[in-house]
Order: sequence, then C-alpha cells, then structure tokens
Amino acid sequence: MSTATPLLLVLDLVGIFAFALNGALVAVRAERLDVFGIVTVGMFTALGGGVIRDVLLDALPPATFVDWRYLALAAGGGLIAFAVGHLLERLGPTINVLDAIGLSVFAVLGAYKALDLGFGVLQAIIVGTITAVGGGTIRDVIIGRVPAVLRSELYAIPAMIGASCAIALNALGIYGLPATLGAAAVCFVIRMVGVRFDLNAPRPRRAGDGTVDDR
Amino acid sequence: MSTATPLLLVLDLVGIFAFALNGALVAVRAERLDVFGIVTVGMFTALGGGVIRDVLLDALPPATFVDWRYLALAAGGGLIAFAVGHLLERLGPTINVLDAIGLSVFAVLGAYKALDLGFGVLQAIIVGTITAVGGGTIRDVIIGRVPAVLRSELYAIPAMIGASCAIALNALGIYGLPATLGAAAVCFVIRMVGVRFDLNAPRPRRAGDGTVDDR
Amino acid sequence: MSTATPLLLVLDLVGIFAFALNGALVAVRAERLDVFGIVTVGMFTALGGGVIRDVLLDALPPATFVDWRYLALAAGGGLIAFAVGHLLERLGPTINVLDAIGLSVFAVLGAYKALDLGFGVLQAIIVGTITAVGGGTIRDVIIGRVPAVLRSELYAIPAMIGASCAIALNALGIYGLPATLGAAAVCFVIRMVGVRFDLNAPRPRRAGDGTVDDR
Repeated sequence: MSTATPLLLVLDLVGIFAFALNGALVAVRAERLDVFGIVTVGMFTALGGGVIRDVLLDALPPATFVDWRYLALAAGGGLIAFAVGHLLERLGPTINVLDAIGLSVFAVLGAYKALDLGFGVLQAIIVGTITAVGGGTIRDVIIGRVPAVLRSELYAIPAMIGASCAIALNALGIYGLPATLGAAAVCFVIRMVGVRFDLNAPRPRRAGDGTVDDR
Repeated sequence: MSTATPLLLVLDLVGIFAFALNGALVAVRAERLDVFGIVTVGMFTALGGGVIRDVLLDALPPATFVDWRYLALAAGGGLIAFAVGHLLERLGPTINVLDAIGLSVFAVLGAYKALDLGFGVLQAIIVGTITAVGGGTIRDVIIGRVPAVLRSELYAIPAMIGASCAIALNALGIYGLPATLGAAAVCFVIRMVGVRFDLNAPRPRRAGDGTVDDR
Repeated sequence: MSTATPLLLVLDLVGIFAFALNGALVAVRAERLDVFGIVTVGMFTALGGGVIRDVLLDALPPATFVDWRYLALAAGGGLIAFAVGHLLERLGPTINVLDAIGLSVFAVLGAYKALDLGFGVLQAIIVGTITAVGGGTIRDVIIGRVPAVLRSELYAIPAMIGASCAIALNALGIYGLPATLGAAAVCFVIRMVGVRFDLNAPRPRRAGDGTVDDR
C-alpha cells in the first residue's frame, strides 16, 4: 500500500498483524485445522483484501505479496495464534481494537490507491471497502461459514464511510497525514461504537420475520 | 464488454440488472444477511463472471468494475431486492426471463471478447461460459451452497452452446449484430425450454443411484 | 509452466490429468453434481493452482489457460471420472501416486517460475505451495467442504519442502533437470510416506482436545 509516512506504515503493519491473529484465532475456534491450515487462514485474512484490491486496480503483482514484511507479519500472527491461541481468549478486547485499526487503515489506504491510479469515486469507495473486509470474507468462505461481514455487526459500513471521508477530503484539497488519520479515525470510532453497543446493519423484511434464525 | 451497438449495450445492462436482482433475491431467501450483505451478493452475482473473464484474458482492470453504469445497476438491483424482495416473489417468471437474457448476452459477448483478444476457440468457449455462470457460482459459494449451476438444470450448457454458435458464425465470416443476436437467441431458447420442462444435465451413475439425495 | 524439457512437460501433464481425475472423483463422491459440475470441479482442481500463481506473479493470462493441452487434459480427466468414476474406486492407490507426482512437479515448477520472474525466496516458496495445493483448495470450497489441505494429512508440508529444496539448490548453483527432479523427489517421498503411515501436521491445543471432532 502506498504508505508515504512511517506512522502510516506502522499502522498498516499493525493492521496486517491484527488481521492475521484474528483470522487464525477464528480458524482455531471454528475448525480442527492443522498448523498449515491455521497459518494459511491467518495469511488469507490479512493479505486477501489487498490481493483483490490489486486485481481490480490492475496493480499486480499484489503489494501485500511483494513486500516480505507483510508476508512475515501475517505468517507470524498465524503462528502465534496456533501456538498460544488457547491463552489469547482474554485478549479479545485488545484484538478487537487492533482489528478496528486494520479495518480503518485498509479502507482509507485502499481508497487512496484507487484514486492515485486514476479510478473514479465509486470505484475508490468499493476498493477501500473490499481492501478492509475482503480478507475476512475469504476467511469465512474457506472455513465454511457465511461471511460474518454480510450478516451482522457494523463492519463494512464503517469501512465505506471511512473510505468516503478520505475521498471527500481529497476532493476538498485536504490530503496527507492529517486527512488519512482523520478519515481512519471516523471509521475506527464508528466501528468501536458498533462493537460497544452491538449495533447491526438493517436486515430485509420477510415472511416470519422476528423469529430467531441464526446459524 | 465490447458492446458496439446501443441494442447490445441495453441487453448487457438488462442482464447485469437481472443478475443482481436475482442474486440478491436468492440471498434474501437463503440467509439472514443484512443490507450490505444482500447488495454485495447481488453485485458479485452481476459482476463476478466478468471479473473472472478479464483475469483470464489479461484484460484488467475488469470492464465491469471500470464502468460506473455496471456498478450502479448492480447495486440498484441489490437494493431493490433488499427493499421490496418480499413483494417480488410473484415476479419469478419475469426475473427468469431477464436472467436468461443476461445468460445469453454474457455468454456471447464473453466469447467474442476472447476472440477479439486473440485467444483460441477452446478458450473462447470457456470464457463465454464463465462470463455467463461465474457470478452465480460465486453467489452460491458465498452463501454456503454448492453452486446450483454444477448440480442441476440446463444453465451452463445453453451458455456453452450459445458461445459455440457465436464462434462458429464468426469462423464462417458472419458477425455483427445479427450473429450476436442469433447466437444469444439459441442460448436463450434452450435455457427457457429447460426452465419450462425442468430439464437437467446428465448425472453420473453411482451406488444407490435413483434415490433422492437432495440438500 | 516453464517446462524446458520433454520429461518435465510429460510430468506436468501427468499432474494436470491426475489432479483433474482426482478432483472430479471427489466431486462424484461428495455431491450430486451433473456432468458439467463434475468436469468443472475437475478442471478447477487441475488448473486453479496455476491460475492463482499467475495472478500473484503478474503473469496473466494464466499459462494453464492459454495452453490447450492443459485444458484438454483437465477436461478429459473430469469426463473420465464422470463416465466411469464408479469403476475407479479400486484405482485409489494409483491415483494417489499420480496425484503426488502432480503435487511435486507443481510445487517445484511453481517455485522456479517465481524465481525466474525475479521474486524473492519467501514468495517463491509460497507460490510453489499455492501452485501445488491451490486447486484442491478451490475444489473443496466449491463443493462446500473445509479444504482438506488445511485440516489433515501431510499435503502442503511436502510441497513447501519440495519448493524450498528447489530454491536452495538454485542458490547453490544447481539447476536444470537433475535439480528439478531431485527437489520433486523429496516432495514425492515425503508425501507418499505420509500417505503410507497416515501422518498429520500438528494441530493446535484447545479445550477438550483429544476428543474426536471430525466432520
């Protein structure tokens, strides 16, 4: 990702690590995967959104694949989850915060990358959102679950709003580190409010609505 | 997609809209997705086949991603399914017809795009078919179902035949709008006959064959 | 795949055919797919790893898609599984051997392709492994199973070791046919030992470990 400053690079790498840790922990809990499976799911969670982004933007080979730091951090997060995942349950809130940092940074940097490469506003919002939530979607498909991001919680919506803020600020001539951090902060705050109050996006009406149908 | 004439562009856009509507309605029925999930599944259904096509043909960024009209129609179809999906059940036959139009146009235009870019006959048939059925395959994988196109009905077969007709006509020096519409009509008619008479592609023999094993 | 010698080309094609046969047989057993579904799953199993490899390496269009021999062998393997799959059960051990040949050749040639295109050691190991196990992963996701490669058996580990051997030999100035066959043989032997003794990669500790939880 085009990370011009050390601070953004650090936040980006924090996000990669948090996504890998989170994805691998989901895998540890959900299925009896072996060490290869857990690390693989962690790496897909961390790096998958960036790969889809770079396919859509014709920016292959994917930045998350070329840079060994991304690969190493993603593999490291997965290995930690494999080795001591059963000890990390109590760190849930911390991991949620790190994950929200990743969501916010990926959404904003993904949108910027689309703009940098000359794509339109609509494409930039979509790419920012996909960068942020694509990895988790791949994770869930691989472990045989309907992607959580499609079903519940405020997860994609904050990413869309964060990406949109970044694009709006850019259109107003406001860019650089303050704009990036500001747009990411909007995403981060909405996400954490959603976690705190267990907010969900609206669901469609349908016959028998109101009954619990959760699997 | 290389749509040279207004008529083909309109048919192409009708197909995008029908695929999005159809995909999102399947999502509404199958799973408790939220608004983001339903619109996302609709967009994947409408645009996914074209993205895979353009990856295979090295024609990135994908045409369905670059053109905002495709994105807007796909999102619109998904939003309509979210908002009034419970009222659309009686429109099933109409949506089936629109979906068959999309299938036919995508198969033929996908095959032409492969030929235009210098690929062989085999590749053009495969790409035409993938353009037509790829989106529905992604839809089903995401919502946790074995893809319907791999299991039952005449859905991929008409697309393969339509793509093959387009390629054969092209080899005979017949192209342009009449050839496109003719090949698409072959696909469309076979598809609708299959829907009307509930035809299925052959299944393999195996132990216990004949018992109902449908899930 | 960059297959400089006739022997490697033959082994590569044997691998494609074995993967298609194997993938389609899994599909025949697992789900009530029709002929299109079974051939499709076979082709994805045979060609999918190479497609992901070429996306990551920015080597589109994918080599496995451009070369009609790969397509024809993959489709042929799938058709054979459809036509006489119920007669092939007793050939399980033979198919396992052919599959292990494919695994070994794909891992080594995938790693070489990454090196040839200027990627680093870490990327080459990852790409070699993905070339070898990517097709089977796609197969399982499509038929609604958690990928076997993530759960059990020594399947990805031999591929990683084979790819690593090829890269190490290359760094030592040893390349060409002997190095390729040597590295592939390491992968092949580990894989067959794993099959023979039913070895598994380590699994994470977790609450209630030791109970059987297999689905």
